[in-house]
Amino acid sequence: MMDMGFLQRTRHLINVAQGREKAHLAVIHATLANVYSGELLENQGICVWDRWIAYVGQHPDPAIGPDTAVIDARGKTVIPGLIDGHTHLAGMYTADTFLRFVIPGGTTAIVTETAEPYTVSGYPGVADFMESFADQPIHIYGTAPPIGSISANFPPIAIDDLVRLMARADMIGLGESYWQTVLGAPEQMLPVLETALSAGKRLEGHSAGASDGKLNAYVAAGISSCHEPINAKEVLDRLRLGLYVMIREGSIRRDLEEIAALRKTGVNPRRLILVTDGVTPGELLERGYMDYVVQKAIDCGFSPMEAVQMATLNPATHFNLDHLIGGIAPGRFADMMILPDIRTIRPELVIGKGRVIAREGRCLVSPRVHRFLPLNLDSVHLPAPLAPADFRISSPHGITETAVRVIDMITDLVSLEAHITLPVIDGEIRMDVSRDIIKVAAINRANVPGQKFVGLIRNFGIKAGAFACSTGWDAADIVVVGASDADMAAAVNRVHALKGGVVVCRDGEVTAELALPIFGLMTHLPMENLAKILDAVTAAAHTLGTAFRDPLLSLSTLTGAAIPYLRICEEGLVNLKSGPCPLIVSPQPEVFSRFHGA
Amino acid sequence: MMDMGFLQRTRHLINVAQGREKAHLAVIHATLANVYSGELLENQGICVWDRWIAYVGQHPDPAIGPDTAVIDARGKTVIPGLIDGHTHLAGMYTADTFLRFVIPGGTTAIVTETAEPYTVSGYPGVADFMESFADQPIHIYGTAPPIGSISANFPPIAIDDLVRLMARADMIGLGESYWQTVLGAPEQMLPVLETALSAGKRLEGHSAGASDGKLNAYVAAGISSCHEPINAKEVLDRLRLGLYVMIREGSIRRDLEEIAALRKTGVNPRRLILVTDGVTPGELLERGYMDYVVQKAIDCGFSPMEAVQMATLNPATHFNLDHLIGGIAPGRFADMMILPDIRTIRPELVIGKGRVIAREGRCLVSPRVHRFLPLNLDSVHLPAPLAPADFRISSPHGITETAVRVIDMITDLVSLEAHITLPVIDGEIRMDVSRDIIKVAAINRANVPGQKFVGLIRNFGIKAGAFACSTGWDAADIVVVGASDADMAAAVNRVHALKGGVVVCRDGEVTAELALPIFGLMTHLPMENLAKILDAVTAAAHTLGTAFRDPLLSLSTLTGAAIPYLRICEEGLVNLKSGPCPLIVSPQPEVFSRFHGA
Repeated sequence: MMDMGFLQRTRHLINVAQGREKAHLAVIHATLANVYSGELLENQGICVWDRWIAYVGQHPDPAIGPDTAVIDARGKTVIPGLIDGHTHLAGMYTADTFLRFVIPGGTTAIVTETAEPYTVSGYPGVADFMESFADQPIHIYGTAPPIGSISANFPPIAIDDLVRLMARADMIGLGESYWQTVLGAPEQMLPVLETALSAGKRLEGHSAGASDGKLNAYVAAGISSCHEPINAKEVLDRLRLGLYVMIREGSIRRDLEEIAALRKTGVNPRRLILVTDGVTPGELLERGYMDYVVQKAIDCGFSPMEAVQMATLNPATHFNLDHLIGGIAPGRFADMMILPDIRTIRPELVIGKGRVIAREGRCLVSPRVHRFLPLNLDSVHLPAPLAPADFRISSPHGITETAVRVIDMITDLVSLEAHITLPVIDGEIRMDVSRDIIKVAAINRANVPGQKFVGLIRNFGIKAGAFACSTGWDAADIVVVGASDADMAAAVNRVHALKGGVVVCRDGEVTAELALPIFGLMTHLPMENLAKILDAVTAAAHTLGTAFRDPLLSLSTLTGAAIPYLRICEEGLVNLKSGPCPLIVSPQPEVFSRFHGA
Repeated sequence: MMDMGFLQRTRHLINVAQGREKAHLAVIHATLANVYSGELLENQGICVWDRWIAYVGQHPDPAIGPDTAVIDARGKTVIPGLIDGHTHLAGMYTADTFLRFVIPGGTTAIVTETAEPYTVSGYPGVADFMESFADQPIHIYGTAPPIGSISANFPPIAIDDLVRLMARADMIGLGESYWQTVLGAPEQMLPVLETALSAGKRLEGHSAGASDGKLNAYVAAGISSCHEPINAKEVLDRLRLGLYVMIREGSIRRDLEEIAALRKTGVNPRRLILVTDGVTPGELLERGYMDYVVQKAIDCGFSPMEAVQMATLNPATHFNLDHLIGGIAPGRFADMMILPDIRTIRPELVIGKGRVIAREGRCLVSPRVHRFLPLNLDSVHLPAPLAPADFRISSPHGITETAVRVIDMITDLVSLEAHITLPVIDGEIRMDVSRDIIKVAAINRANVPGQKFVGLIRNFGIKAGAFACSTGWDAADIVVVGASDADMAAAVNRVHALKGGVVVCRDGEVTAELALPIFGLMTHLPMENLAKILDAVTAAAHTLGTAFRDPLLSLSTLTGAAIPYLRICEEGLVNLKSGPCPLIVSPQPEVFSRFHGA
């Protein structure tokens, strides 16, 4: 990420700092939020050469020449560009679309997970994904995929792939390794963690639900952060064990208000970090990005300096990037914004990599459009179209009813394992729409195309039709729920035809759809169109009967190992507490296999 | 520095944390100074397996078995082992001697410079030096030598050597690069800085005397710390530019009391670090080590938690070691101490790498004695013994007096360049002891053995005899001052015969001496003996007439580029502001050469 050679640029910076060469850009008379010392300093000048800061202090004049673009920030406050320390940029929009809505709010660096493209096409998927972030107006770093999901088709990352990824300057850590996987499958996961640690990188964590002994064990494996705490106590438990704690305020969850109770404890905030963990198109348009999060932190009672540090110096320090980003100091990238005052995170001007990239909410640059590899534009594979009969659930012969495991939605995201007796008719276990028990299937679309498992789910709310997507978490699967085998087949086939996307079907008709042809996950559609189409998909899903706030999120997470408890993959059902389990409840005690902990 | 394999140890730590395997050692009922959260936590248990911490929290019992050594710390406070983030361990004593006096005070990690052995014997010197720190009861890390001194014989480190050093796990940064060298010789120094940065390492700084434009330029080159500020303003100037600032409290300087004024500014202390920069045997015996420094920080008004953080988490974070040291948390080395309370840095018990290594001020372990390579035990080379005539300073023919440059000591360390007219008799420029103008010489003893330069120095105070040492800073030189050519020759010849050391001569007799046969810099002598001999050397030097507090330090620094202004090396005089300069003051304006800045 050093762009121009260090030697070449540093010679210039040294000269500009001493006034022997002139700056390209200078901000003068600013009140500077110095995140290193925690001070607001008056009458500061900042001199920029190319992408970098050469000088900060009260005497910028020697470096200002006739060709220097001078910005007078008298009466204004300058803070460093904001960093989102944890998100998932494989969430629908591409960088060219997304960055237009990020840049005006002053976010200038983002750390994204990369597990999604890895499950679809392995190393070439991650490389292509990261390539789409190169040479953009702001910095986008990646964390390598640990994987190790509920399906054996998506095991821990191959060490060879990880070694290649860790050698990249834009890969600054290992992405979130679920604690259950690390503790449940140490033989498989510890070599992954060791490879990343040996490369000097950070190990991002995911410790939702772990406490005391389990949390200690997880941290002992070298994990260095967690973005999952949802209240002050959980934050404290993790901070005290040496983790950097990321406070999440995004579309998955909004934890900032609850966690702000922490302020009363007087705890040192140096290892707290603000992150989004992903923002939907609609919420991005409506609220903004890290600017919204930092403003909310201030509004929730964090001091403005603390809030700014939590989105600048703290994440930069955590990721060993503080020599490049996270503060306004010589040698760092010139990433900063001009605010009315430090309490008001509404930038009047944003500078990224030394250029003015936004002014008064308008993005002044065109993020680069990346041409993804053909392989990643045709990544949704099925050996043949599916028929309604493919969603039949056969039962053992000669019985009229059987007890089955059902994914029991107790919120729009969290499920329990319910054991429910269902009728068997013509050798087929039947769903019971009247009791809100419908079918759910996961179908591998990548490395074992067509491998599938059909199960049952309660309380999703769908009374008719089917709802399918190719965006299943932690897996390159198509996930579908439906009250009709025919609509399930039609929806899945349409997803396949779109080369990925989201489809709502009813009575054999597609009632809404969104094509996601990049990795089967993303689209180049402009953000407003994307948000509208998503609204239409949500509305169409709601007309099927579900009342979930974001039915696509509920559907996508069914294959994920992040949210408890009963999940589905193309191999079958998996209880995150106890491991894989058969659909039919056996009267005998069961023995659990593989790496899901005991 | 991972000792036992990560995989093997982590399997055990995971088990111990969950009570499935028993700890080797447990500290229970402790008040814990949690440096991450900044809290003092009551009733904490810490479970240790082998060298590492497996569990921290209120429920250690599951990991405590019949063979666990349990230490009840009820009513006591546990803090992490202390770190000295910047020192010079090539300063006379070897690790086996030194660590006995460091361990009882609870220092468990040290970062040492390595330029001294590098000037003597290059890469093999540094490797042997670092080898002497391996497998010791506490951690000793090194920073690679940048060098680039006032003599062309000690240029910036060879990139090949640096690449090899940076690949070592025990080399965590590039050592202090003088700002004058970096800014004066960017063509030579920037590739050195780049090599270390590319290896992901920190660049230690030395910015004494730099401010505003020059300080900005220096930081822009990637420098990440400075240990030279001597007052609160200088600290602030550096903190604000993104440097970690090391507050020095050791034998070279004691800056803590003055810098403590900083507390009134409310500045954020997260990037402040306490260091010694070296402690003499006498002061080590009298005051202790980092325990003394942390106690003094508390006594100077830093809060106890801040003071402890400044010697634990802050340096660990700076050096990207916070996953290994600097706090009491799972996966870290079990380095900690038990105190009466957090305000009283007098450890009742010290644990290092999981073992009880000191109790009530007594060291319970025997640091390993390293056998240095023969090459480094015979490192003081001269082609032939020196004669008194070798210290004659010839003058141009036919003059009776001449103006010369004289090193003018304005303190015991700082010198100015004085221009003084001296008599020329028999073609020889004569010193004038009556005006306290005596001779000084630097003689290369390593890579150009015997190359020497004889100059003049004022206000050293010596009225008779000579004082020589092989411990010249930034150079493998013998340095000698004297009021007698014969005593200068005798003193240098004795240093040579000792294969390194310090010698005081008067009237042809050696009146005191200290042999330093390791690199010509160090000895295995026990600390008390060493301190006594040094006292005798100092006393003998004082009998020559000098009143300097530590005449050996004054002598050794004459070849160094760290302290202004006029210095000497085997090539001649060098003014640190303007570069090399001839002894005889020329009436013409002079052109400066090489890399000493304009």
